[in-house]
Amino acid sequence: MSFFPVAFDNLVDKFASLPGVGSKSAQRLAFYIMSLPEEEAMAFGDAIHEARRSVKFCRVCQNLSAEETCSICSGSRAGSGTVCVVAEPKDVAAIERTREFNGTYHVLHGVISPRRYIGPDDIKIKELVARVAEGGINEVIMAMNPDTEGETTARYISRLLKPFGVKVTMLAYGIPVGASLEFADDATLMRALAGRQEI
Amino acid sequence: MSFFPVAFDNLVDKFASLPGVGSKSAQRLAFYIMSLPEEEAMAFGDAIHEARRSVKFCRVCQNLSAEETCSICSGSRAGSGTVCVVAEPKDVAAIERTREFNGTYHVLHGVISPRRYIGPDDIKIKELVARVAEGGINEVIMAMNPDTEGETTARYISRLLKPFGVKVTMLAYGIPVGASLEFADDATLMRALAGRQEI
Repeated sequence: MSFFPVAFDNLVDKFASLPGVGSKSAQRLAFYIMSLPEEEAMAFGDAIHEARRSVKFCRVCQNLSAEETCSICSGSRAGSGTVCVVAEPKDVAAIERTREFNGTYHVLHGVISPRRYIGPDDIKIKELVARVAEGGINEVIMAMNPDTEGETTARYISRLLKPFGVKVTMLAYGIPVGASLEFADDATLMRALAGRQEI
Repeated sequence: MSFFPVAFDNLVDKFASLPGVGSKSAQRLAFYIMSLPEEEAMAFGDAIHEARRSVKFCRVCQNLSAEETCSICSGSRAGSGTVCVVAEPKDVAAIERTREFNGTYHVLHGVISPRRYIGPDDIKIKELVARVAEGGINEVIMAMNPDTEGETTARYISRLLKPFGVKVTMLAYGIPVGASLEFADDATLMRALAGRQEI
């Protein structure tokens, strides 16, 4: 039995349903909402409604977008012929910060993960295949995280795309810029050796 | 510059304003909201609105309540003459679980903390003094956490209430039930020794 009003317990449950938020934290967050001035608390609820209502997924690249087609896919970069495939929208932001990439993106919204019961059909792979099948794309760059799930996903997609005759590449592995060789882990060093380039 | 729609960034900011939620976590939580079925996301926003709108603070004990006066303060326990003072509503739930206390509560909503700029006027101390001044209360039990801030608050309130001739007590310190003496910290052991009782 709870000693709190139903509406409060309900809010605790909602917070507890968020990833990485346990029941103690959920209660703490709900108390925090209760302690806010009414206007601020209402604005929090409004922000959730508004985000879920107005934010769409670009029908081309599946990235978050205020419009049906995002600004990158509807702009001049659409004709570049290069698509960079990432797992999450935040990875688009990371690559955009480099100002080095001039193609479009494709956001998978996850990676294949048998451990978490995420199969190829649970992420936006068929949308990517459809884009490539439509033509106009020469190169697809796989930019997943360098872990088992990321690599599995990259290899799976690569196999699907090969029949269309596009070039499939992946980001280079190696020593991070500014890092010290001494502290690099073995797996990274092995990759860096294998990927050595002439200078 | 952000690469996400304004409504999304706004939601990230809201999550980041929660205690203990950093900017990376806030983004993760906002993405999670975006990934929910629309109905569930809306229900989350509704839960915040509903909790903030319908949950009140009991006008007597300041605990969360669905009514103007909570069920404890409006029930038979109101005439017990004993008030247990706690820092937070969750502490009421902890003491109720023991089923050993039959008086009413008073929730301070915080403790005095110079370090966090929380003074006596920032928590519900004057409401407690008013209750005691009204009469009908024989004993006030201080049930704050056994740390410096909890003790400071208990002693401050104790000084304020003494003139009204009420008995002011505090929870016993000592070795937790089931714990091993060997691993008890020095401060707890000292308290346990000082508070020894004849058997």
